[in-house]
Amino acid sequence: MARTMLLPVLLSFLILPFSALALTQDFCVADLSCSDTPAGYPCKAAGSVSSGDFYYHGLAAAGNTTNLIKAAVTPAFVGQFPGVNGLGISGARLDIAVGGVVPLHTHPAASELLFVVEGTVLAGFITSSSNTVYTKTLYKGDIMVFPQGLLHYQYNGGASAAVALVAFSGPNPGLQITDYALFANNLPSAVVETVTFLDDAQVKKLKAVLGGSG
Amino acid sequence: MARTMLLPVLLSFLILPFSALALTQDFCVADLSCSDTPAGYPCKAAGSVSSGDFYYHGLAAAGNTTNLIKAAVTPAFVGQFPGVNGLGISGARLDIAVGGVVPLHTHPAASELLFVVEGTVLAGFITSSSNTVYTKTLYKGDIMVFPQGLLHYQYNGGASAAVALVAFSGPNPGLQITDYALFANNLPSAVVETVTFLDDAQVKKLKAVLGGSG
Amino acid sequence: MARTMLLPVLLSFLILPFSALALTQDFCVADLSCSDTPAGYPCKAAGSVSSGDFYYHGLAAAGNTTNLIKAAVTPAFVGQFPGVNGLGISGARLDIAVGGVVPLHTHPAASELLFVVEGTVLAGFITSSSNTVYTKTLYKGDIMVFPQGLLHYQYNGGASAAVALVAFSGPNPGLQITDYALFANNLPSAVVETVTFLDDAQVKKLKAVLGGSG
Amino acid sequence: MARTMLLPVLLSFLILPFSALALTQDFCVADLSCSDTPAGYPCKAAGSVSSGDFYYHGLAAAGNTTNLIKAAVTPAFVGQFPGVNGLGISGARLDIAVGGVVPLHTHPAASELLFVVEGTVLAGFITSSSNTVYTKTLYKGDIMVFPQGLLHYQYNGGASAAVALVAFSGPNPGLQITDYALFANNLPSAVVETVTFLDDAQVKKLKAVLGGSG
Amino acid sequence: MARTMLLPVLLSFLILPFSALALTQDFCVADLSCSDTPAGYPCKAAGSVSSGDFYYHGLAAAGNTTNLIKAAVTPAFVGQFPGVNGLGISGARLDIAVGGVVPLHTHPAASELLFVVEGTVLAGFITSSSNTVYTKTLYKGDIMVFPQGLLHYQYNGGASAAVALVAFSGPNPGLQITDYALFANNLPSAVVETVTFLDDAQVKKLKAVLGGSG
Amino acid sequence: MARTMLLPVLLSFLILPFSALALTQDFCVADLSCSDTPAGYPCKAAGSVSSGDFYYHGLAAAGNTTNLIKAAVTPAFVGQFPGVNGLGISGARLDIAVGGVVPLHTHPAASELLFVVEGTVLAGFITSSSNTVYTKTLYKGDIMVFPQGLLHYQYNGGASAAVALVAFSGPNPGLQITDYALFANNLPSAVVETVTFLDDAQVKKLKAVLGGSG
Repeated sequence: MARTMLLPVLLSFLILPFSALALTQDFCVADLSCSDTPAGYPCKAAGSVSSGDFYYHGLAAAGNTTNLIKAAVTPAFVGQFPGVNGLGISGARLDIAVGGVVPLHTHPAASELLFVVEGTVLAGFITSSSNTVYTKTLYKGDIMVFPQGLLHYQYNGGASAAVALVAFSGPNPGLQITDYALFANNLPSAVVETVTFLDDAQVKKLKAVLGGSG
Repeated sequence: MARTMLLPVLLSFLILPFSALALTQDFCVADLSCSDTPAGYPCKAAGSVSSGDFYYHGLAAAGNTTNLIKAAVTPAFVGQFPGVNGLGISGARLDIAVGGVVPLHTHPAASELLFVVEGTVLAGFITSSSNTVYTKTLYKGDIMVFPQGLLHYQYNGGASAAVALVAFSGPNPGLQITDYALFANNLPSAVVETVTFLDDAQVKKLKAVLGGSG
Repeated sequence: MARTMLLPVLLSFLILPFSALALTQDFCVADLSCSDTPAGYPCKAAGSVSSGDFYYHGLAAAGNTTNLIKAAVTPAFVGQFPGVNGLGISGARLDIAVGGVVPLHTHPAASELLFVVEGTVLAGFITSSSNTVYTKTLYKGDIMVFPQGLLHYQYNGGASAAVALVAFSGPNPGLQITDYALFANNLPSAVVETVTFLDDAQVKKLKAVLGGSG
Repeated sequence: MARTMLLPVLLSFLILPFSALALTQDFCVADLSCSDTPAGYPCKAAGSVSSGDFYYHGLAAAGNTTNLIKAAVTPAFVGQFPGVNGLGISGARLDIAVGGVVPLHTHPAASELLFVVEGTVLAGFITSSSNTVYTKTLYKGDIMVFPQGLLHYQYNGGASAAVALVAFSGPNPGLQITDYALFANNLPSAVVETVTFLDDAQVKKLKAVLGGSG
Repeated sequence: MARTMLLPVLLSFLILPFSALALTQDFCVADLSCSDTPAGYPCKAAGSVSSGDFYYHGLAAAGNTTNLIKAAVTPAFVGQFPGVNGLGISGARLDIAVGGVVPLHTHPAASELLFVVEGTVLAGFITSSSNTVYTKTLYKGDIMVFPQGLLHYQYNGGASAAVALVAFSGPNPGLQITDYALFANNLPSAVVETVTFLDDAQVKKLKAVLGGSG
Repeated sequence: MARTMLLPVLLSFLILPFSALALTQDFCVADLSCSDTPAGYPCKAAGSVSSGDFYYHGLAAAGNTTNLIKAAVTPAFVGQFPGVNGLGISGARLDIAVGGVVPLHTHPAASELLFVVEGTVLAGFITSSSNTVYTKTLYKGDIMVFPQGLLHYQYNGGASAAVALVAFSGPNPGLQITDYALFANNLPSAVVETVTFLDDAQVKKLKAVLGGSG
């Protein structure tokens, strides 16, 4: 083939055969100003998408662990990082000071993959029907997976701050902390006791601590 | 750990580490005023969601079976029960008087699970390639499952009214009754005859009965 | 068309044009003797499938509520009812005696639709990020939906036994009861306390009650 | 970069960095000797896969239309064409002689896209709730889409043989022909009449024609 | 049953038992004036849907192959054919003149099924981890499947024009032509060389031909 | 409620009401000795699952970057880390020495989320229809998302080694490196040239380097 002829002809090729292929959905950056749908947010107009939509700086700094749990979860879910909308993935950063803990919780809408970047993390999850506990002590470089919807926890098992990066199998995994669900709202103490068998004093103590009422 | 110190510190915990977690999609109550999407309706704003969205009273009363089929289907699909939007489930109530029938039909978009609550129901479905019929006589407390998209029927097999509760594996299962599809519209009789091998007199008779034209 | 000619010709039609359509998967009744897969169990051979595979009688009788929670959950999941395999649906029966409760729990793998068949049920669920509680008092005929993975509970709110039929948006929804996950296994008390902020005495009391160790 | 150095170094690159990437599932050619699963057949061992698995010659010849419906459906579903397993697509060829018809039917597990290759095809589908009929006369080069699970039909509307290629949105779409489901099996005539309102004579006539009993 | 009584009663049946079944989603014709979502476009209002939405004439005429590649791809994706929205399928027509080629490309969001309608097509795809090439020479009537996301190509292997109809397992499959991705944009030549090991002269030559800059 | 009565009764509760809930699928650890399926590997028997299945140490050590690309990809896909089977997620570690590059590639079966742990990474991806390039210079702590199936690359943009952790939205994402697909196999040079417009000398040079034949 005479390659010297290539130029003028290919330029028309550029325009002709595939010109009708607008509207291809390679991605769907969330337009957070719109209502969500069961499959995620409507897409931003292609013309207003930029590299910044696929990039997030918010996990670069450590979260503030000056709090009781001595830990911080910094999310990069669709609400913070619109580029993950519709892509089946999102992330977060965990900072756990010495003695800190990410309390017992679930992610209703995703499995979690945790990479330890610094320090030592003790982590575990509990199965549903048999209540089996799977635990591991994780050191720098180790990873662990927590199946969707199962109760799990992480706490610092070392003498220095721990940092982990986590990824989720969905853009909006949710985070339901059992203590918050029970004690940080207006669910009446009597109902909490009925559905958990906890003692009244215990319930009222934690409701007071976590700001719940009733 | 000194639990007496818990209170003031945990309150800050309440605010600090997870405060960025807005926008979590635990559910997506349908905003029926919006256009549907392939995955369901856009979600109502979180602030306007209430307990009533997850509750439906419309199946409590018996449907009116004073009609030829002596039966009534009362749906709790997303159109009636917006809380099921995006959740992969919906319900309905069947009332079948003595001699009544839910005629041959399919649900194009869901499998069906039927619980008999009162009376006796004769039910069956037919497979696609081999035309095998699976039937059961169902009494109070029995359940039966009908795979997605397959022709099936239920009729009262006893001497008293039958009531069944049904659940579907999708929020908008659809209901295509074969007789209606053929005879309750303007599909020309000649076309009906060509695609079904039914006799002209039969087609015209049922078209007249079901209000079809052509 | 001369209908008198129909018979001999159609019989060959029966055999000829669609004879290659074996292997169609209208359903996939679970072969529970095989290993599960992420999408469900391998299918029983078509030749060994019968009407009984799509039918289940096990919910017809009340569960035994002579136990502390005065309640019983009788499942019709894929393990009990192999016909639901792959169909995105399953069921269960709840019997809740006066004073009985289905304790705080989640279904990691399905949303739940509850129909009250007898009595009065107080039910609620809690959202993940905002810890909002949605509750309803449900009477005979009422239905309520519980979104996948969220903590919820049901208890008898009346003066007579309550019965509910529930459907799930998956054949194997799972059932993780928070109390069991925490107290009915060998998860060390110190770990439970660290991840829940419960007092040591409370943890040990419930571990003793629920048969846990550690 | 000195490109003359490229050769010896890249060869080690070939071996080193990605050598652990066995087991990648680019495709999953059906091993039809295994039991199906809800997601499709187990995969043939990679070593026994060849180009022939992704290729099918069976649609090249016209189907035999010497039968009453004067039509033939030649499938390239997973059972005939194992390469489509798990890929969400399959195909078929329709041959419709003059006066021929593909009778009223559904595909329970896929939508259909039809390309007319020769002749004229009259096609239509019927919606579920409103029983609306959407029809088109299709000429060579026209395409039409039939949504999953809805009743539809195609017949020859011209003076010469028609050929169409069809694609399905799943590897095993199923094909439920209404007439076969009703008249080509042992479903008792009385049941057919109850669930369709067809006359007894009509049912018995078509049962005789299509080889049904009862 | 006295069929003479059927008419007046069934007419009420027409109205009564299923009248609440509006909003059923049998299909979701794309409203292309709305923002896309991860699951596809919002649906056109039911009242404005017509037969034309499920029909497309745009593949009837040959594409213009007077260009360097001597080939044309004419899409019937959701952007051109809104009726396929949400249905998991779409189509296209390939015209490949003698000596023409559809260059190396992927469809990021769908598998492809190709039917040869005229001529001879040489086609192949390449697996990801093992770089195995599967190729076939396809004649009129042959079909081949290309798994999602894998590099593949088609070119005319005969002495006459080739025409193929292709179907995709999604309404918006995408089309990423490797040459275009590398040479038809502003990606700097140095970056192209770094990530492909192509020589600078080669990169600049093709950038010039394909209209790229940098 | 008299809590002193709790103990003996709850123990029976432990056994009675939920005893039938075996077979719950909280997870499905891959049994790599079985054939894969379209949804993943069959599950290991519950009795042989241990904490180690959900944990992987293989990303803790740096990959060997003494190769031409001066980079290494260490996967934690289902083949290396069976616990992720069926969970919609997997991971990998990238080590990129100074001057190193992960060449142009796609993941046919997953989106990718990249966390920079050390150093500076220049990364970009290219859209399908418009060939738009989205690039970012990423520093420690930055994250970037690469949509499924699109061509992308990463290279070291700094003066020290770079390390990144990546997560994928599927357990078996695949990795198709364009150079390998073209030059590291037996695809004839003439075919490569036809489908890429590369010069013969260029193709033969890279085939030699990458070990391809033909």
